[in-house]
Amino acid sequence: MNSPFHNIGIVTRPNTPDIQDTAHTLITFLKQHGFTVYLDEVGIRECCIYTQDTDGCHIVNKTELGQYCDLVAVLGGDGTFLSAAREIAPRAVPIIGINQGHLGFLTQIPREYMTDKLLPVLEGKYLAEERILIEAALIREGKTAERALALNDAVLSRGGAGQMIEFEVFVNQEFVYTQRSDGLIVSTPTGSTAYSLAAGGPIMQAGLHAFTLVPICPQSMTNRPIAISDASEIEILVTQSGDARVHFDGQSFIDVQNLDRIIIRRYHNPLRILHPTDYQYFKTLRQKLHWGEQLV
Amino acid sequence: MNSPFHNIGIVTRPNTPDIQDTAHTLITFLKQHGFTVYLDEVGIRECCIYTQDTDGCHIVNKTELGQYCDLVAVLGGDGTFLSAAREIAPRAVPIIGINQGHLGFLTQIPREYMTDKLLPVLEGKYLAEERILIEAALIREGKTAERALALNDAVLSRGGAGQMIEFEVFVNQEFVYTQRSDGLIVSTPTGSTAYSLAAGGPIMQAGLHAFTLVPICPQSMTNRPIAISDASEIEILVTQSGDARVHFDGQSFIDVQNLDRIIIRRYHNPLRILHPTDYQYFKTLRQKLHWGEQLV
Amino acid sequence: MNSPFHNIGIVTRPNTPDIQDTAHTLITFLKQHGFTVYLDEVGIRECCIYTQDTDGCHIVNKTELGQYCDLVAVLGGDGTFLSAAREIAPRAVPIIGINQGHLGFLTQIPREYMTDKLLPVLEGKYLAEERILIEAALIREGKTAERALALNDAVLSRGGAGQMIEFEVFVNQEFVYTQRSDGLIVSTPTGSTAYSLAAGGPIMQAGLHAFTLVPICPQSMTNRPIAISDASEIEILVTQSGDARVHFDGQSFIDVQNLDRIIIRRYHNPLRILHPTDYQYFKTLRQKLHWGEQLV
Amino acid sequence: MNSPFHNIGIVTRPNTPDIQDTAHTLITFLKQHGFTVYLDEVGIRECCIYTQDTDGCHIVNKTELGQYCDLVAVLGGDGTFLSAAREIAPRAVPIIGINQGHLGFLTQIPREYMTDKLLPVLEGKYLAEERILIEAALIREGKTAERALALNDAVLSRGGAGQMIEFEVFVNQEFVYTQRSDGLIVSTPTGSTAYSLAAGGPIMQAGLHAFTLVPICPQSMTNRPIAISDASEIEILVTQSGDARVHFDGQSFIDVQNLDRIIIRRYHNPLRILHPTDYQYFKTLRQKLHWGEQLV
Repeated sequence: MNSPFHNIGIVTRPNTPDIQDTAHTLITFLKQHGFTVYLDEVGIRECCIYTQDTDGCHIVNKTELGQYCDLVAVLGGDGTFLSAAREIAPRAVPIIGINQGHLGFLTQIPREYMTDKLLPVLEGKYLAEERILIEAALIREGKTAERALALNDAVLSRGGAGQMIEFEVFVNQEFVYTQRSDGLIVSTPTGSTAYSLAAGGPIMQAGLHAFTLVPICPQSMTNRPIAISDASEIEILVTQSGDARVHFDGQSFIDVQNLDRIIIRRYHNPLRILHPTDYQYFKTLRQKLHWGEQLV
Repeated sequence: MNSPFHNIGIVTRPNTPDIQDTAHTLITFLKQHGFTVYLDEVGIRECCIYTQDTDGCHIVNKTELGQYCDLVAVLGGDGTFLSAAREIAPRAVPIIGINQGHLGFLTQIPREYMTDKLLPVLEGKYLAEERILIEAALIREGKTAERALALNDAVLSRGGAGQMIEFEVFVNQEFVYTQRSDGLIVSTPTGSTAYSLAAGGPIMQAGLHAFTLVPICPQSMTNRPIAISDASEIEILVTQSGDARVHFDGQSFIDVQNLDRIIIRRYHNPLRILHPTDYQYFKTLRQKLHWGEQLV
Repeated sequence: MNSPFHNIGIVTRPNTPDIQDTAHTLITFLKQHGFTVYLDEVGIRECCIYTQDTDGCHIVNKTELGQYCDLVAVLGGDGTFLSAAREIAPRAVPIIGINQGHLGFLTQIPREYMTDKLLPVLEGKYLAEERILIEAALIREGKTAERALALNDAVLSRGGAGQMIEFEVFVNQEFVYTQRSDGLIVSTPTGSTAYSLAAGGPIMQAGLHAFTLVPICPQSMTNRPIAISDASEIEILVTQSGDARVHFDGQSFIDVQNLDRIIIRRYHNPLRILHPTDYQYFKTLRQKLHWGEQLV
Repeated sequence: MNSPFHNIGIVTRPNTPDIQDTAHTLITFLKQHGFTVYLDEVGIRECCIYTQDTDGCHIVNKTELGQYCDLVAVLGGDGTFLSAAREIAPRAVPIIGINQGHLGFLTQIPREYMTDKLLPVLEGKYLAEERILIEAALIREGKTAERALALNDAVLSRGGAGQMIEFEVFVNQEFVYTQRSDGLIVSTPTGSTAYSLAAGGPIMQAGLHAFTLVPICPQSMTNRPIAISDASEIEILVTQSGDARVHFDGQSFIDVQNLDRIIIRRYHNPLRILHPTDYQYFKTLRQKLHWGEQLV
């Protein structure tokens, strides 16, 4: 095949032996078309890939996937996609998602049509979309204690202690407000249909250059979702942390202490998501959110 | 004084030495008018009451307060009131709240006018209001593992793990729904202006015979607050508990495990709150929520 | 048949010739079982009933339906049910709803199973549920200018002028607030799943003795839905009416002028709705609102 | 004065004779500093300007204001500002707002400090902010029937008939959804703190390149606010118009018929708003929305 891609990585949903048949179909298809296949070692370890399928493939960790591949295919749900996306973001490798039965916001190709949908993509016929990521730093006593990326959201929230937390928010060093609440979601457009939506945040069109600050159960009813430019630097100074944490895509977290500062910016690399050419952004939303279809 | 009351208990906000002067004024006032005064031993221990003020008073614990007193006065904020209310509820003793500077939903008499406002109340001129309490039981493997009361709310909610929990809700044994969310608030009318309001719940008039079920950040946007009769029995079967807990008035909690059942009913005794005769329910709401005043 | 009922009224959805076959089945079924059938004259006029089906039936207007019948069956959607309910409410006649294809909150018997479901009901095996209605009066210059009933809601709202209106609300003569908004919904529990839900109101269990006051797009974010006892008298004094109206169940309305007072109370008769014995209140909500089903 | 401006227009709030003194101060101040003053003829006609103050000024209509002036000062509230902004937008003249006692989102200079605040601005020391405007066209039977501008919002909404309307929404020709509701707000960031906020829309930072689509009381709870790029073309096809209208900034409107198409785009000129150099965007929000101030 005359393809812009050569080395294709495959990431499988962890702990999902059911995925072996789909993975087999995909690996076989890629080998037949002459691609070099890189497999995430976690998939091997967790029996998501048949042993015989590994023949002729490179077994690597997720960091190496980003290093060696020029396309990464995710088999699984949005959770698997999010975790792969954060790993490969530093390498700016494009990514494509194949779901295992349930349409995802990010994994939109159904496994039944996987090879039919992938063929033109591999031939270079695709839509490419750029999504911003969040880069967060936790500053403790003047020093950067931790760093993390997120494709959906960075969420400061209280733990199990049952007490609201308190913090001050700044945008580009300008003071915004003091808030008392269960927490604050800083969401990308990608994350706007995830946790942010459950907390009352707006939907943001995928390509919009904006973050939203969405309060979680704020004590004051005037603390409403705010959309700001993704060129902004957001700073959250935690003044009553309780047992708060900052979560990234709901998949990793950092414990927070009083007077910690959380700095949030757009990550320098956007994520490049590939779609079949018949992809329609609002169609996915319509299906996932049960919006009204056109009458005629 | 010709009073319907004889033994008056005083509960002070914990860890608040500033309260000593107000307590002194109140104790002196009550002694002068011939009342027998019972002091909560916590207030003594935490230096919220001057040592000399204890002369001639009975020092008791909160359970004994309910046992010996025919009126309990709370000095402090709504939190102090909630905790005292749960303790005395089994004895059906009336309660009255005096705030320390900030108007509370429950502590409405300002300390500056404390004696002026209390005098007619002690002479029997007052408005009495009954508020329902929640009685909750945690059923584990068929047995009642824990019991608790709440004046505001019983809140099932996730802890710091950052994952939504999942549970089924039944009202009077009838299945209502399966919900995936950060948790569920079961609120009394009293609690409807507290955490429930932050989570998007409606305000319920204080005397309404209803509970509200208010989802916290539900994954499905059709999971909206529901008001049900307070004669109902609510059962929550936790199917994916994560690190969930049930909190009572945000002041005590029980850890929850998978397949635990939480049974919530109206407690057999209502709480009796006394108010000065010029008390207006909506005036407090207007002041606390900054509602529009009458134009003329 | 040994039935508690003798005279059965039939109300058909207006302007719906498709309903003729269902009406034919129902009329034939009732005649066969020896009931006297009363037909709403509107159904005849609008060709919703075959001419031959009127043989042996009484043709009456809706007021007479309430007068002569001891049960009224509604063929149509919730709109038809609402309008029939308001007409027969003064006579306290029970009502039962049969839908034409779409499950309604009020018309829950599907036409396919109509006779199977009605048979036991007519034999006296049913669940009866009482629903409160709203009685509203418009007071202009000290005199009652208009009166109306509503099963769902009385809605004060602005018209096409595009300006918010302003009004004061009183509950049992106690001032609640001044509000500036697009309007205010006073909803019964029955109406809580209708327009009120779209405006952000809570769901109220059908039998709850409560009204909700739900602001429509209020200028102040602290103007939240309030549930109050249905024994309350609500008064709305319109201070800036613009081109406002009060709508009843979205089906009739009264124009409002500055300084008009709208008085809203529970109507002295409740509406009696009959259901088949397998009726489950929350099942309808689950189906209409797409709530999560039980997992096992 | 060495100023980048020469011809300064003044627009006064209509029907507000109280404004005469402020206008007098401003006109005198501008004349003293050698500026040529242009007065909106409406202000003269409605006695908002003392007759003697017109000496040496040019009396023009709003279109001419845009034509002859290189700065327009608005005396009044946000409503006056909105209406002036739409008039001068085609000429790209900068604008500055002076309020009459109540802080506005757009009229932020208090009249008491008017001349102190204006002096540095007139000397060229100011912050300039660009705000997008909406350009709307109503297409009827294939032809553009009407055109209008809006700084806050274009609002499709039902009139007094009390029935929801129905419409289809397209973004860049891509179908979004069919919606049944009281209407739809298309808001700029400037409008996000106006009517949109009352309808549940998010706050959008003033400079954000986005519109929000905010449904008004939608029948479906999954119809949530959506933020989209301001480079998008929005089309609303009205399928059940009832007595609907499209309102612009709540100040002018067009009647809508079935199958009308409303096309909404960003207007080619942004509005240029000048602020004193100590202007802070979030400070205004904090004051208007009563957000929590910084603790220390």
